[in-house]
Amino acid sequence: MNTPATIHVPIALGERSYDIHIGCGLLAEAASWAGLPASADALIVSNTTVAPLYASRLAAQLAVRHRRVLQLALPDGEQHKDAATLTLVYDQLLGAGCDRKTVVYALGGGVVGDMAGFAAACYMRGVPFVQVPTTLLAQVDSSVGGKTAINHPLGKNMIGAFYQPARVICDLDLLDTLPERELSAGLAEIIKYGPIADVVFLDWIETHIDALRARDKAALAHAVRRSCEIKAWVVSMDEREGGLRAILNFGHTFGHAIETGQGYGVWLHGEAVGCGMVMAADLSARLGLVDAALVPRLQQLCARAGLPVRAPAMPLARWMDLMRVDKKAEAGEIRFVLINGLGRALVRPAPDALVADVIATHSLPA
Amino acid sequence: MNTPATIHVPIALGERSYDIHIGCGLLAEAASWAGLPASADALIVSNTTVAPLYASRLAAQLAVRHRRVLQLALPDGEQHKDAATLTLVYDQLLGAGCDRKTVVYALGGGVVGDMAGFAAACYMRGVPFVQVPTTLLAQVDSSVGGKTAINHPLGKNMIGAFYQPARVICDLDLLDTLPERELSAGLAEIIKYGPIADVVFLDWIETHIDALRARDKAALAHAVRRSCEIKAWVVSMDEREGGLRAILNFGHTFGHAIETGQGYGVWLHGEAVGCGMVMAADLSARLGLVDAALVPRLQQLCARAGLPVRAPAMPLARWMDLMRVDKKAEAGEIRFVLINGLGRALVRPAPDALVADVIATHSLPA
Repeated sequence: MNTPATIHVPIALGERSYDIHIGCGLLAEAASWAGLPASADALIVSNTTVAPLYASRLAAQLAVRHRRVLQLALPDGEQHKDAATLTLVYDQLLGAGCDRKTVVYALGGGVVGDMAGFAAACYMRGVPFVQVPTTLLAQVDSSVGGKTAINHPLGKNMIGAFYQPARVICDLDLLDTLPERELSAGLAEIIKYGPIADVVFLDWIETHIDALRARDKAALAHAVRRSCEIKAWVVSMDEREGGLRAILNFGHTFGHAIETGQGYGVWLHGEAVGCGMVMAADLSARLGLVDAALVPRLQQLCARAGLPVRAPAMPLARWMDLMRVDKKAEAGEIRFVLINGLGRALVRPAPDALVADVIATHSLPA
Repeated sequence: MNTPATIHVPIALGERSYDIHIGCGLLAEAASWAGLPASADALIVSNTTVAPLYASRLAAQLAVRHRRVLQLALPDGEQHKDAATLTLVYDQLLGAGCDRKTVVYALGGGVVGDMAGFAAACYMRGVPFVQVPTTLLAQVDSSVGGKTAINHPLGKNMIGAFYQPARVICDLDLLDTLPERELSAGLAEIIKYGPIADVVFLDWIETHIDALRARDKAALAHAVRRSCEIKAWVVSMDEREGGLRAILNFGHTFGHAIETGQGYGVWLHGEAVGCGMVMAADLSARLGLVDAALVPRLQQLCARAGLPVRAPAMPLARWMDLMRVDKKAEAGEIRFVLINGLGRALVRPAPDALVADVIATHSLPA
């Protein structure tokens, strides 16, 4: 297994531009932190699973840049991505007297990144923040785009902010400790970029899916890089999610319904998205937007990635209610991200009857 | 008492530019709402004091622009500007299934504006919001600058966002029901603009202070307009509070200590700022930055405005602790906004001994 050279992916957003570093051994490399704000105080926000593995290594690196390096380990899991847990970050920052130059480092997966990022966005109306994603999903997805949020009992990611990090450090070595199931969840978001934007990348993933599951560093480096590049291209054209950016939510409308309907944490986000992509592809095919061959193709690729491809049994009315509170919904109308010819996506509503057919086809029996 | 013509003050912030309308009878005027997003849903956020007076009048105007006009009356008072009360806004928006085009209208004083604005900034990562300030303080202060926030037990306005409204409607008729004490609190923020930026305006206020207290509409219109213009000029050069903008906090370092030390809601924000201005002017004079004559001059003007000019008795250590958590503080060092020649301000630290003298001089005996 060869060690790939470190890649820098620039995210061009005017004053809020930043770089994503992708490579091996980045946590211990001075170049990873060079040029970031070297304020008096730093806070590492992690969780109880990741902190014991990596927090002290990160803290040791940061100790040469900050006078004080505070640490906070949040309870692990999507079910804790709420207002009560967010408060723990503010309590720590204010309790320690941290000023508004304090740098917040998010060390963890998407949940930690979302909460640390949202806390950084709001603490004293905004302090600098650096992402150190430790899951594949966070490296390819939540590290680009500046979306931060917490959940509300009535919906996922309903309260949040668009807030860009000062840098993202994707150290592929951190993926060595990632559970199999979470690796697969990350692959779902990587697969997503194929149908919506890049047919060549979809072919590449199909060829390299076994290497990716075996955590080959060169394969991971390319997958993370290409995913970040595609996402960066979309986000740079639509930072605040006015239009184009919505295509990144391919699979997420059905997926959110699965996640919320089952209760946060039962299905992993990536698992729900994987299943949701198959369903959205089928809806696209039924609307005549894409060749029906995409459906089994995606289904097989997701299965090879180790993802569940059958949705849990839920009453149809429940599906519809859950999808109606999706943020893409407008005036109660559900809007789906659909494949409009392989490699292109669009956002539009769909007839309820077709949606019901798709749900019936892809759900487990009640 | 003559009715002044409606004034539009443009706030130039690129894509986030908006207008402040200042005049009489604006609530009932179609021109006040023309051009704003006419989405399906609107939410009027008010409080239990203001809602019975004006919410139904506003709702009637908005009913021609939105399919549904929801209303929420928050508990009144600075002591409710917290995370628990903020949640009520999200609960209402999500409970009613409001999408991300929903327009939030803030109908109330600074507390309502801060909370409705912060809720709008975070709901689905940002929905449009319109300010309808019903206090003099909110009309001159919180309607310009995009600062929104809630308090934390360890400090005022510690959690928030910079978020610009789509428009601000300053209907001077709404001030008719404002209690005397709150009118005076608003005058404190108006007086503030004199010493930091505009000597001519300071002279004008001294000449018109009785007319302002008598709620002469023409005098109020000029005072609100000039205050907004000065604040807009400062904010347009420093939207995110990197430097110049801090001068708007003249009187606020001492003032925040009074407010927090006494418990939110005991002193009104404007009252604390009035007293804080006198103290900051004295500190400026002791540092040789401004003629000592400013101190009695400001003291007299504040007294004529109906403001308290003596701080409550608090131990010195308590003052210093409270001022150290001010957002302007850096690495534990308190930074004061000081008058540097009448009409100009700067931000700098000051020797503890001088600060102690100022506190001793202007506080009531223990």
